[in-house]
Amino acid sequence: MKELIDLVDKKLDEYMPVTYPEDIFKAMKYTLMLPGKRLRPVMCLETARILGADISKVLPAACALEMLHVQSLIHDDLPCMDNDDFRRGKPSNHKVFGEANAVLAGDALLTFAPQLIIEKSKGLKESQILRILHEYTRFAGAYGLIAGQVVDIESEGGKLVKTPRETLEFIHLNKTAVLFRLAVRIGAIAAEADEKTIEEFDNFAKKFGLAFQIYDDIMDEISSFEELGKTVGKDKNSGKLTYVSLYGLEEAESKFRNLIQECYGIISRYDSKVFNEILDKLAERIRSN
Amino acid sequence: MKELIDLVDKKLDEYMPVTYPEDIFKAMKYTLMLPGKRLRPVMCLETARILGADISKVLPAACALEMLHVQSLIHDDLPCMDNDDFRRGKPSNHKVFGEANAVLAGDALLTFAPQLIIEKSKGLKESQILRILHEYTRFAGAYGLIAGQVVDIESEGGKLVKTPRETLEFIHLNKTAVLFRLAVRIGAIAAEADEKTIEEFDNFAKKFGLAFQIYDDIMDEISSFEELGKTVGKDKNSGKLTYVSLYGLEEAESKFRNLIQECYGIISRYDSKVFNEILDKLAERIRSN
Repeated sequence: MKELIDLVDKKLDEYMPVTYPEDIFKAMKYTLMLPGKRLRPVMCLETARILGADISKVLPAACALEMLHVQSLIHDDLPCMDNDDFRRGKPSNHKVFGEANAVLAGDALLTFAPQLIIEKSKGLKESQILRILHEYTRFAGAYGLIAGQVVDIESEGGKLVKTPRETLEFIHLNKTAVLFRLAVRIGAIAAEADEKTIEEFDNFAKKFGLAFQIYDDIMDEISSFEELGKTVGKDKNSGKLTYVSLYGLEEAESKFRNLIQECYGIISRYDSKVFNEILDKLAERIRSN
Repeated sequence: MKELIDLVDKKLDEYMPVTYPEDIFKAMKYTLMLPGKRLRPVMCLETARILGADISKVLPAACALEMLHVQSLIHDDLPCMDNDDFRRGKPSNHKVFGEANAVLAGDALLTFAPQLIIEKSKGLKESQILRILHEYTRFAGAYGLIAGQVVDIESEGGKLVKTPRETLEFIHLNKTAVLFRLAVRIGAIAAEADEKTIEEFDNFAKKFGLAFQIYDDIMDEISSFEELGKTVGKDKNSGKLTYVSLYGLEEAESKFRNLIQECYGIISRYDSKVFNEILDKLAERIRSN
């Protein structure tokens, strides 16, 4: 896994130029290059690999996933959204570059990511690139990631169209699971997997995403700033819908463990050290707290 | 031209659904459906038509151009950017839906536009769709529209990397001309035009875009709120670089007239009532003020 993370870091640095007007490229690159787990690109690359594709084919799309993720973080941190001053332990984008540049850096990442896929995906067929772009637009926008963010914000304001539990699941599926789903789907498409396999990985990513978000909710409840690298207790303090607030800590932990077990079950059909390592680490962190 | 505008309005309404979570789709649709000249989609459709393509092929891409344009307006109007309370004579997006939703509505339009191109462009080859998407990402992002916005904002803050005149030209080319260029390029690509023809239309759009921006600078200087549908005198009051502030009103008008004449010259090779009407109207407005 360490190898894949290093590869992604190297490629992100290589793909993301700094040219005139430098301020926008610097702002894009700043949050992008903050050390992260690179889970989405790593899961994309690993899916492609275990399904038999040369991972070099899918490196641009994998890096585009991280750009899309970082875009959502930059906009999420804005004063008019979550108003978070820290991200990955460092000042958030708008604290360094100002709000206007942070808005524009997010916009620019949102168009640079598909541009990268189009320009650098050597070895993929046109039909594969088009399908990857289609999935990208479906999952990144108002039918996916942004839907999750909107319902998240509305729920904080107490505005619920569905029941609290339905709303929470919608938020978690769309705000968190959606990019993991996109990651494995792109990996599988690059490997020319059949639809059944794509759906199997999609199902894995959905469960993983839910577990990941429950983990996040639990950590926000019990962890410290040093561990988290961002402001703690915000969810609780803002009266936000979380697994912990709706189900209590114990049931949240139990739901988390069940989802992780289901993930192990799905991935056991493949020989993937990386996926096992990702699951181990997530499970381990909950245990150690 | 009226017919094309009506067609674009009808298609925008048809393509832009309002579904759960409704607030984001409503926010996207609100600014999109405010009455506008639809110049970018109209120019895209007309280029395709005079170069021999069935315009139905390019309608989704033409509407995507309007979405991209509207996205830039929504983010431009934000308090952290131009802080404009009005757009097209109505309250701007964030005044109606709040800042968070306005940021997200812009993001969502930025991904919905290419999604629309991928899903609805019947009759175009995969290679044409990919090329259109490539141009879209190049012109919409940090190498195009956003570069123009960033340098525009920086120049307002007095930060110039190039000379004022070079900076102003960069801003106008990237903030304004870029979407007209993208419009005619997409129309020409849909018509399978050769590279020379694409560049000819690109050159037309570059000159038209510069003329259009000079017109905008002049109007901001001499016009009233009722005529403009947005706050007036903002450029002047903010000490912004404009053609008028750099060259004076007289030279700005002369530059404008020359560019319009050059546009007539290029387009005279084609039998286009629509392009002539667009040029006539722009030239007429300056004369009548």
